[in-house]
Amino acid sequence: MKKIINTPENFIPEMLEGIYAAHPGEVTCAGEDLHCLVNARKHPGKVGIATGGGSGHLPLFLGYVGEGMLDGCSIGDVFQSPSPEQMLAVTKEIDQGAGVLYIYGNYNGDIFNFDMAAEMADMEEDIRVESVVAGEDVASAAPAAEGEPNKRRGVAGIFFVYKCAGAAAAAGKDLDEVKRVAEKACANVRTMGVALTSCTVPRLGHPSFEIGEDEMEIGMGIHGEPGIRRGKLKSADEIVDEMLEPILKDLPFREGDEVAVLVNGLGGTPLEEQYVMFRRIRQTLDARGIKVYHTWVGEFATSMEMAGASISLMRVDTELKEYLAAPADTPFYKQFQL
Amino acid sequence: MKKIINTPENFIPEMLEGIYAAHPGEVTCAGEDLHCLVNARKHPGKVGIATGGGSGHLPLFLGYVGEGMLDGCSIGDVFQSPSPEQMLAVTKEIDQGAGVLYIYGNYNGDIFNFDMAAEMADMEEDIRVESVVAGEDVASAAPAAEGEPNKRRGVAGIFFVYKCAGAAAAAGKDLDEVKRVAEKACANVRTMGVALTSCTVPRLGHPSFEIGEDEMEIGMGIHGEPGIRRGKLKSADEIVDEMLEPILKDLPFREGDEVAVLVNGLGGTPLEEQYVMFRRIRQTLDARGIKVYHTWVGEFATSMEMAGASISLMRVDTELKEYLAAPADTPFYKQFQL
Repeated sequence: MKKIINTPENFIPEMLEGIYAAHPGEVTCAGEDLHCLVNARKHPGKVGIATGGGSGHLPLFLGYVGEGMLDGCSIGDVFQSPSPEQMLAVTKEIDQGAGVLYIYGNYNGDIFNFDMAAEMADMEEDIRVESVVAGEDVASAAPAAEGEPNKRRGVAGIFFVYKCAGAAAAAGKDLDEVKRVAEKACANVRTMGVALTSCTVPRLGHPSFEIGEDEMEIGMGIHGEPGIRRGKLKSADEIVDEMLEPILKDLPFREGDEVAVLVNGLGGTPLEEQYVMFRRIRQTLDARGIKVYHTWVGEFATSMEMAGASISLMRVDTELKEYLAAPADTPFYKQFQL
Repeated sequence: MKKIINTPENFIPEMLEGIYAAHPGEVTCAGEDLHCLVNARKHPGKVGIATGGGSGHLPLFLGYVGEGMLDGCSIGDVFQSPSPEQMLAVTKEIDQGAGVLYIYGNYNGDIFNFDMAAEMADMEEDIRVESVVAGEDVASAAPAAEGEPNKRRGVAGIFFVYKCAGAAAAAGKDLDEVKRVAEKACANVRTMGVALTSCTVPRLGHPSFEIGEDEMEIGMGIHGEPGIRRGKLKSADEIVDEMLEPILKDLPFREGDEVAVLVNGLGGTPLEEQYVMFRRIRQTLDARGIKVYHTWVGEFATSMEMAGASISLMRVDTELKEYLAAPADTPFYKQFQL
């Protein structure tokens, strides 16, 4: 295990100390627990938005707490859900009289703990909480049938959900409206990933899975959940084609649609390679008559040092474009008005 | 070699196609050569600032072309200098009547080619060009004696030089003044790196150097140039201490000084680990009575997938703080007014 850390046990607390020390005035701690991070700036009357999940995915989740995006976040240890008590502490801190929206990824541990926190917030604190669970990884399950729960994992596409809901809340919309925007973003985003190497959870000390020196796995999740096909490493264009086709078919994205594109590095894949991927994505979208509204390339949801990437597309309309275009200012994500 | 590319020969041209496709209206190509990238927005009368160097270091060099930073950049293939003709093409495109400043790292190939481009710009185009060569890696050579040339390599600290000079140019300062600001930033910045793994140049297909599974090299350069000590991987705090001490001694940074801090990931080291490093940096600076003006943590100058990091400190005064605080908006680096 080759990491710049002190001990596995102190990895996340010390990372958090570093974050608070590096961004004073931007983020602060809700109470005594470093794992509960909130925007240092308050906006009375604004809907509060919280997220959370396991550590090891920076800039997800902490990174999007700030102006125009999220108000708070609680995190657990690497790949571990935060507790209901931690979520409740964040919820109490970010409620500004207009209720709180939870937006988080579709993982059982998170659902259980967020639901419990929502219940405690309602019963003990009289704070109204609504939840939107993002699950847009097309490799992780078939689309949910009418009336059935969505079984898909939430991955990097949640960035678009944060961005749109965050902009709606910043624009003064009420909780129902912010929730509607978040759900609309969820409904229109699809993601697929590819992994080239594993990452190592510090407390375990060995790679989460084995993968050959010449192999890749299409559709792998950001904690190493199984993908849909493992095989020899192919060319960038072939990899992109194999990831993009299921995305396009799933929604489906059609000629005349307009999309936001996110190419997300998983941690160990250089930005150079991510742009080689975007070149092919753009060629394919152009050929299909799908217009690109705006493109994001970089690391938005990682698995520490894992090599690989994901592609997310969100179909946009005038409303979603307006929210995507709004400025945002967090320690990890800054955007001027588009 | 585990990379998402098509062919080693097309890696950089295809990366560039991806960058132009992803950021229309922000960056554009000077002439026909994709390797010559300029800000799509013009500012008549403003001093033009250009940089350049080998590819494989994103967001360096291309990434800082935009509002409030650089006007143009030419790049070569991976770790290869651009040609004088490419630099000249950029120079002609970005001259807005006030002359052009070159800011680049202290490498022989770059110096030779930039000097030739400056001469051609003067002789053939009547464009006045001045140059500032950044070389702040304390591990790479002893400090230059009075009147001797600086032999130190330029690494991530050049980000601060771009930021300050870019803000001075955006504020309407003339060429001499922008050059003075760049030189002042250079004189006050110091960097030290550590590498945990090598990277692989695609055309070579094998790692640039061998390093044991339990080893690190303190002071290694961003192309794998030898460092000052190779040994067993230590704890994050020990690594930071070993990097920070030579930086502090070199300038030297003294009690009462105020500094800008840059923790830079080399590509393969997760953001989580970089914040663990910053925690220790901050503890040490606090203990020494050195005040932190502002902190940047992330990937600013990489070696593709190399694991490792560097620490840069710049001593700041009212003038440098004002330039650091100014907004910037490039495809890869965005900052609101601090």
